[in-house]
Amino acid sequence: MAQQHLDPTDPAAGAVTGDTLAGYLRAQATEFLRALRLHRETGGSSNGTEESVDAARALRRSARRISGSLHTFRPLLDTAWSEEIRPELAWLSGTLGLEHSYEARLERLLLALHRLSGSSAVPAQTVGAAVGGPTDGAAPAPLKATPPNGNLTVGAAKAGALLDRQLTLARTRAHSTALQALGSSRFHAVADKVAVLASEVPLTATATSTDLLPMADAAEERLTDAITALPLVTAGHPYNAEALIHGLSPDPSSHPQDGPWHQVRLLLRLYRYAREVLLGRGAPVDLRLLTAGQALNRHRDASEAASAAAQAARTPRIAPATAYALGVLHADQRHEVEASRFAFQQCWQKQTVTTP
Amino acid sequence: MAQQHLDPTDPAAGAVTGDTLAGYLRAQATEFLRALRLHRETGGSSNGTEESVDAARALRRSARRISGSLHTFRPLLDTAWSEEIRPELAWLSGTLGLEHSYEARLERLLLALHRLSGSSAVPAQTVGAAVGGPTDGAAPAPLKATPPNGNLTVGAAKAGALLDRQLTLARTRAHSTALQALGSSRFHAVADKVAVLASEVPLTATATSTDLLPMADAAEERLTDAITALPLVTAGHPYNAEALIHGLSPDPSSHPQDGPWHQVRLLLRLYRYAREVLLGRGAPVDLRLLTAGQALNRHRDASEAASAAAQAARTPRIAPATAYALGVLHADQRHEVEASRFAFQQCWQKQTVTTP
Repeated sequence: MAQQHLDPTDPAAGAVTGDTLAGYLRAQATEFLRALRLHRETGGSSNGTEESVDAARALRRSARRISGSLHTFRPLLDTAWSEEIRPELAWLSGTLGLEHSYEARLERLLLALHRLSGSSAVPAQTVGAAVGGPTDGAAPAPLKATPPNGNLTVGAAKAGALLDRQLTLARTRAHSTALQALGSSRFHAVADKVAVLASEVPLTATATSTDLLPMADAAEERLTDAITALPLVTAGHPYNAEALIHGLSPDPSSHPQDGPWHQVRLLLRLYRYAREVLLGRGAPVDLRLLTAGQALNRHRDASEAASAAAQAARTPRIAPATAYALGVLHADQRHEVEASRFAFQQCWQKQTVTTP
Repeated sequence: MAQQHLDPTDPAAGAVTGDTLAGYLRAQATEFLRALRLHRETGGSSNGTEESVDAARALRRSARRISGSLHTFRPLLDTAWSEEIRPELAWLSGTLGLEHSYEARLERLLLALHRLSGSSAVPAQTVGAAVGGPTDGAAPAPLKATPPNGNLTVGAAKAGALLDRQLTLARTRAHSTALQALGSSRFHAVADKVAVLASEVPLTATATSTDLLPMADAAEERLTDAITALPLVTAGHPYNAEALIHGLSPDPSSHPQDGPWHQVRLLLRLYRYAREVLLGRGAPVDLRLLTAGQALNRHRDASEAASAAAQAARTPRIAPATAYALGVLHADQRHEVEASRFAFQQCWQKQTVTTP
């Protein structure tokens, strides 16, 4: 893939080396600091305004990119420094991301409950809704327009209220954890390291003469290897009913079959960041790579939403109608999982076919 | 469609007229009487042997064909006689079919529960299972090999036991009703009429010089008109999430969106019988017509199974885990409904494309 855009035999294109990586890391570090300043100015996550949410998202975004690039291009960077900062960046983006995850999960589940109730809050044309469900980074669904449980039938309304209670509680806890994290000395240590990175990237002695391409290609290879191991033939058969197998197994939160897809999602993201390093930020976005990533985001979101519905159904003393609605909801989200795999298969196969 | 096989401009092929229809009706009436005799000899439905089940199926089969042909070719038949016997044949095949329906529905639901529990009773390759679920007329699923609720998790086991109880009760009632029907004077009146039909078909005076083709074509037109009105564009988009809309609506047994599909199923059957009349029983079966019919049978079966699951969930005092399992099961069967529509769309579109 990288070769298509960065052909090393092309005399017009010099090799992309550690200098480029350093520039990318400096830019991401600067972005991180800008987002952090904005986050503080807007009152932090406690505020909950759109600006502070955007700032938190930008923080996570640059933390992921720095961490990912350090991983893909690790031979070019000071090992001790790199091994120290990477887990800290992962901790930070994980901690900051949780609150948003719970919020998005609740939105997705309430939206699904409305759809399953044939509620007027959901447009009649569901083809689009099913294909483009909310994924992280997408604009929040316009749920505020209707009261969360307006127009829902009794079971669905109770299920919605239960999920609202449980996921709002989880979100509130995640919020407190994030606030604590942002005030911790651990966070200040990361922020200090990123501040240094913004001006000075700890490259190895040979980095500026080392070609980045083989490392980006290796990232691509890890991605394509992982994709090859996916059950894409099954995924390409619509309505294969694979995702709901074990839908009633004893532990509803464990879906081992989702693991390889989550892994591909991470590898695809790493490869996407590697491309960003090599091609620069102004380079055209590979639309199919983007679409594949969105399908995998939807896969992850639906998988977690299905687990949340199953988990809620284990709440003691709920009414049968509530449990029934949660069962329908769980199955619905598992079918979203299956639909995402189909979408991924379709877009990835297209990519493979059109690439000579 | 009919023109393809029976070109009236082909000098080698004489027009197919009322004589052919009379021959077909006599053959079906003979088949009906043979099945009835076999049914009595094997001890009737009360016996439950494979032979008596086959006999009941053959009875329904010929009753449907006689009734359908009387409908399609009604201008050729004595109106009073035809209007008298048709509702009686419909009553008979409906009454005899109910027991089998409940049995097949229970089998389908228990099989789905096993699949959803990741039970070893279901083969790992589910693509085939999802595509070729049990339809009426198909061989019974090999459920007897495993105890109905073996390997099921607690909620699924309880749901299975509940469905078993409810559908077995319904089946037993249907069985009694069928027995009563077969011993009733109403039944004997139908049987007498069919016995007369086996030797003497009450054709109109002009029937033997009337071409059957325009009537078969009209049956085809009614079918294609009804198909045109189906939401085939949506159905052709895999995972359109259409079938589960209203999955949590107040009345779970009403799925008005299924109606037009059920209607097409009946029209397709009528057209298939009309073809049988025109082409003779030795004529090659139109495989795509057969496949379309199977998809619509599966649609009907899954639709009714989904309703049964929803209905069972309304049983008072069931455990939340049971209700949850029934919710998952309901959604699973509604997705089977959606999958059947997709299968129909695929096969019908293929048919349309390959026909010049």
